[in-house]
Amino acid sequence: MSHEPDAEVSLQPEEGWHCTHSYYTFDWGELTGLEEYETAAGREEIIAILDPQGPEAPMRLQTSIVSGHKADFGLMLMDPDPLKVDAVHQRLMASSLGPAMFASYSFISLTEVSEYVPSLEQYGQKLVDEEGETSGSPSYHAKMKAYEQREGHMRRQRLTPEFPAWPCTCFYPMNKKREVVENWFLLDFEARRRLMGEHARTGMTFGGKVTQLITVGLGLEDWEWGVTLWARNPGFLRDIVYRMRFDEASARYAVFGPFFTSYITTAEKMLDHCRIGIQTEPV
Amino acid sequence: MSHEPDAEVSLQPEEGWHCTHSYYTFDWGELTGLEEYETAAGREEIIAILDPQGPEAPMRLQTSIVSGHKADFGLMLMDPDPLKVDAVHQRLMASSLGPAMFASYSFISLTEVSEYVPSLEQYGQKLVDEEGETSGSPSYHAKMKAYEQREGHMRRQRLTPEFPAWPCTCFYPMNKKREVVENWFLLDFEARRRLMGEHARTGMTFGGKVTQLITVGLGLEDWEWGVTLWARNPGFLRDIVYRMRFDEASARYAVFGPFFTSYITTAEKMLDHCRIGIQTEPV
Amino acid sequence: MSHEPDAEVSLQPEEGWHCTHSYYTFDWGELTGLEEYETAAGREEIIAILDPQGPEAPMRLQTSIVSGHKADFGLMLMDPDPLKVDAVHQRLMASSLGPAMFASYSFISLTEVSEYVPSLEQYGQKLVDEEGETSGSPSYHAKMKAYEQREGHMRRQRLTPEFPAWPCTCFYPMNKKREVVENWFLLDFEARRRLMGEHARTGMTFGGKVTQLITVGLGLEDWEWGVTLWARNPGFLRDIVYRMRFDEASARYAVFGPFFTSYITTAEKMLDHCRIGIQTEPV
Amino acid sequence: MSHEPDAEVSLQPEEGWHCTHSYYTFDWGELTGLEEYETAAGREEIIAILDPQGPEAPMRLQTSIVSGHKADFGLMLMDPDPLKVDAVHQRLMASSLGPAMFASYSFISLTEVSEYVPSLEQYGQKLVDEEGETSGSPSYHAKMKAYEQREGHMRRQRLTPEFPAWPCTCFYPMNKKREVVENWFLLDFEARRRLMGEHARTGMTFGGKVTQLITVGLGLEDWEWGVTLWARNPGFLRDIVYRMRFDEASARYAVFGPFFTSYITTAEKMLDHCRIGIQTEPV
Amino acid sequence: MSHEPDAEVSLQPEEGWHCTHSYYTFDWGELTGLEEYETAAGREEIIAILDPQGPEAPMRLQTSIVSGHKADFGLMLMDPDPLKVDAVHQRLMASSLGPAMFASYSFISLTEVSEYVPSLEQYGQKLVDEEGETSGSPSYHAKMKAYEQREGHMRRQRLTPEFPAWPCTCFYPMNKKREVVENWFLLDFEARRRLMGEHARTGMTFGGKVTQLITVGLGLEDWEWGVTLWARNPGFLRDIVYRMRFDEASARYAVFGPFFTSYITTAEKMLDHCRIGIQTEPV
Repeated sequence: MSHEPDAEVSLQPEEGWHCTHSYYTFDWGELTGLEEYETAAGREEIIAILDPQGPEAPMRLQTSIVSGHKADFGLMLMDPDPLKVDAVHQRLMASSLGPAMFASYSFISLTEVSEYVPSLEQYGQKLVDEEGETSGSPSYHAKMKAYEQREGHMRRQRLTPEFPAWPCTCFYPMNKKREVVENWFLLDFEARRRLMGEHARTGMTFGGKVTQLITVGLGLEDWEWGVTLWARNPGFLRDIVYRMRFDEASARYAVFGPFFTSYITTAEKMLDHCRIGIQTEPV
Repeated sequence: MSHEPDAEVSLQPEEGWHCTHSYYTFDWGELTGLEEYETAAGREEIIAILDPQGPEAPMRLQTSIVSGHKADFGLMLMDPDPLKVDAVHQRLMASSLGPAMFASYSFISLTEVSEYVPSLEQYGQKLVDEEGETSGSPSYHAKMKAYEQREGHMRRQRLTPEFPAWPCTCFYPMNKKREVVENWFLLDFEARRRLMGEHARTGMTFGGKVTQLITVGLGLEDWEWGVTLWARNPGFLRDIVYRMRFDEASARYAVFGPFFTSYITTAEKMLDHCRIGIQTEPV
Repeated sequence: MSHEPDAEVSLQPEEGWHCTHSYYTFDWGELTGLEEYETAAGREEIIAILDPQGPEAPMRLQTSIVSGHKADFGLMLMDPDPLKVDAVHQRLMASSLGPAMFASYSFISLTEVSEYVPSLEQYGQKLVDEEGETSGSPSYHAKMKAYEQREGHMRRQRLTPEFPAWPCTCFYPMNKKREVVENWFLLDFEARRRLMGEHARTGMTFGGKVTQLITVGLGLEDWEWGVTLWARNPGFLRDIVYRMRFDEASARYAVFGPFFTSYITTAEKMLDHCRIGIQTEPV
Repeated sequence: MSHEPDAEVSLQPEEGWHCTHSYYTFDWGELTGLEEYETAAGREEIIAILDPQGPEAPMRLQTSIVSGHKADFGLMLMDPDPLKVDAVHQRLMASSLGPAMFASYSFISLTEVSEYVPSLEQYGQKLVDEEGETSGSPSYHAKMKAYEQREGHMRRQRLTPEFPAWPCTCFYPMNKKREVVENWFLLDFEARRRLMGEHARTGMTFGGKVTQLITVGLGLEDWEWGVTLWARNPGFLRDIVYRMRFDEASARYAVFGPFFTSYITTAEKMLDHCRIGIQTEPV
Repeated sequence: MSHEPDAEVSLQPEEGWHCTHSYYTFDWGELTGLEEYETAAGREEIIAILDPQGPEAPMRLQTSIVSGHKADFGLMLMDPDPLKVDAVHQRLMASSLGPAMFASYSFISLTEVSEYVPSLEQYGQKLVDEEGETSGSPSYHAKMKAYEQREGHMRRQRLTPEFPAWPCTCFYPMNKKREVVENWFLLDFEARRRLMGEHARTGMTFGGKVTQLITVGLGLEDWEWGVTLWARNPGFLRDIVYRMRFDEASARYAVFGPFFTSYITTAEKMLDHCRIGIQTEPV
């Protein structure tokens, strides 16, 4: 039994951030019951609450217009403090438009670095074992240095990600299968690493077209992982998911939850699109 | 890692259109609470919003009366711009009848050309390999030319389809199975092509009776594909689905979602059928 | 590709009828908000709408009181025209009681003759092959004539059924299993015919106690078939379903949806039972 | 085809009773909208409706307080007439509190004698075959007589049960599995009898602690059977279900639906517990 | 058939407590309809109801803020008397804020000592058999005495637990799988004890980071067990669940229900976070 009395008692993980994906639907029965000035006020309040530069905004705050009937808009929120993330939801609900909207779905998770990414030491060993490098040689050093930078960038991008500037995004939760014959969690580490490596290489072929972020729901959510994709255009969302479905990691072991496709924009444009508080001309 | 810096940052796919199937139910509790003039205004607004020739209408807009309790009416919408498609939904919700209706279901997808359709080159090769044609011979050229036209027509029909003039339509989403023994995504391309070919030939036996359009939900929706059928009469919807269920591609590999059967009409006739804003005589 | 340009463009199938099972629940929160005269008017409207002899009534219209919380009453409706069937639902919703009731479930289907019933020709062949009859002999002719009559009666009963005069009824949708080892749609016709024959013989042992009607949901509904049972008393509903569950066709291949048990009556008695618009004495 | 023209056309089964388990939740949004005198009147009406000695009460009527959010109270109702059972629900809904409550779940079933219980004749045969008795001997006669009494008591207890005086009760529906390898309905009678016998013996070890009643949903409900347990204290509910789960009949073949745990009381005490119509002091 | 006429007729189990996890969501449509003084009163009532030292409070009462859209706050309640536990729910519902909140989920269970924990006698035997101790030797006695204390502490902690002072908590229900090949309930005791032992050892590696409590839903709830985790920080919730998923007991045999992650606080701070009854400045 290992005691670590020094581990801090805190709502914040030791590394990485909390992440919440939230989806909201407007209720026009309630909206119609509001006075015009209430809707106008609510509109301004929502714009303020969803301002990524606002005084109470979490570290990341992204607003998008959702396609289809599942929701009208989506939020992607990240911060070290889970209550700061959740406070965005509570401020929306307590706003003048709160009575006229409801949360249709959410997914809570944590950022993390995948255990399948080699550490610097593991990478060095791999150079020697698999690529015939001599430890300590100039080319070994050059490669190690390059990896160190890449790995550092990758860690930051996983734990405290910057979001890409692409407008098309899709979120879905997923599990790994635990069937009688095909059980991810009964595979040994090496087998899992190999499958995830193959999967990652497929992902890399979409470099410049699609960016992916995996966050972890294990211990927090109904699903084990959450996948967020950003794409240059919506066709690439389809292309990468279709292509990846043939990877053994997906084909044999993945179980997928609901998909939420949305288009990134500002709170103001989202409200315009949803016709909230705008002068509605006779259509 | 392949970079394609020239791929446009856009909400529009590089080829093909966005497609949304939407289903709506009227809420008579709310309808009864509206003033007669509100209902009358809402009726006119809906007729305008659902006018396929309207100024803001997407490229395709089809209205139908849904059978059964799942919904009162359905829409099938297509356009290169997903927000133009979604705006139809937002305009309906923001109309005078918005408070008295709700979206019971929707499915978002993209049009595409099936990867199992041979390209012109592949077709030429097939002529030589499987049909004993000599490359460059007159009959080879004639067949190639015919295929080129057929393939072009088919591409247009898949990517930017014209809807047939038949009144009976059915939509359902579907997946391909990924069970331990029967896993579509572990089949090689040739096996999948053969199964889809058999399936397509079944479809062709319904030529003149049923038209089918497959759109792709992968990366966007809970289901991988959406199937839209149009039929000369409702018996053919039953016939083709029953017949196809025995194809190995379906029998062994298909998983089906909910079915929505509806009858194509104008917005005005749909509103009449649903008795919205008409003078209701004592029944 | 077979073209049949002569197949009529129509909402009516070439043979048989549309069939809808609909289930409704009253909402007492809304009912209490109605004025007494509104409830009284609504009661009269519902009685008129559900009158099987009414001017707009479909060919078949049966009302029943549903047991349990799934619904208060059920309808079974049949007509060649699907909009005539659906109009009953729309008239109920648009009635004075529409705001105080909602459709809890429905199932849409078509009537049909089972493909496992031998045609007259097949029957003749069977007489020769399996029963040692000589084609053209007097006993062959007598049997053929008897079958012709039986088959004609059976066809009418399947396509345009008369409902039995028994008060207990149950409806449930069902699929045939498509599991890896047990897949109905991978069985050959002969195997399916044999299993359905065994199943039909079990049904016949309930002659005089239970009548069954199978309608087809394939291509129209979430489930492949709908089963309607009518019984002399409710114990026979249990007996036949329990007994049939041991038939291989059921035990191995059937997947069942929700069951709706109800007792056939008039609209007026149904409304009395549900205490709609009657003078409610202090209980 | 066996005709039994004498079988009565009736809503009542030839033997045994209808049984309904119903669960209700109060809606405090609606309750708060009622006038104090309406709540007080509704409270009295509910007490009258749920009086097991009331003039319209079915043969059995038991009220209980449900634990957790699934419902506030439960009813267990039995009578030969299904409409008399269902009328309790309709009277509740039509009461002054009807608008402020809704049915969250129900299960309808019939009582029956298990087919695995030997008849007197079968028991006699078993005495001779398995216990070495000589047919007609004094000890044979004594055993037969004892069984006859036991079997008669058991039949009455199954078909028209008296409820035990224990306060803890649990209801859950269940099916028998029909998987590819483990399929209850493909077992022969002897195998099923053996498994049910083992299961019954486990039940007997809880004599004096737990009483069980099995009612049949087959042909009426989504689930095949309903299980009602009454226990001297709640720990025995856990003990018997945990212990029985290891019986092969359960471990291998049982599929369980939702569980409803509740504590038997009078309607009045139930309303007190749910704080309906009592003077609510500031908490 | 064993009779134990002395077993008390009681709502309380012979040992251990009832446990309810409850989750609540506020309804801002209703909240907005309340007068300011009603909300203020409701706020005070909720603080009183959720005061762990209040006169009617059950033995344990813990309040937490829930992340995501599943609920706004959660309660964990324990008492020997199930009606005392349930009364907290009824008092919340009957409070001035009752109309503006609803229970989104609950799980009822009982505390218990795992059958896999060795008794003092079994432990003594194990010392002799597996650790080479001589029964009665000084070191045997020392070990026995130490175990006796540990076991007593563990029993109290299982049956009448003190909650740790850590702020991060997660609840989820679970079952053990009963698939054709992998069926927990067909394993013999020794195999199950071994798997649970391995699982427990994994848990111990999180000593000082995570505390776990298993309560039993068997016979009471839809799921067999409920798992409550408390962690020093949220990263450990993820770490332990991820790590344990590779234990054979989980990987092969566990089936998980919904997860509820929440942060422990006082009722007052929870209401502040949810912005109930506070002066809401323009955001």
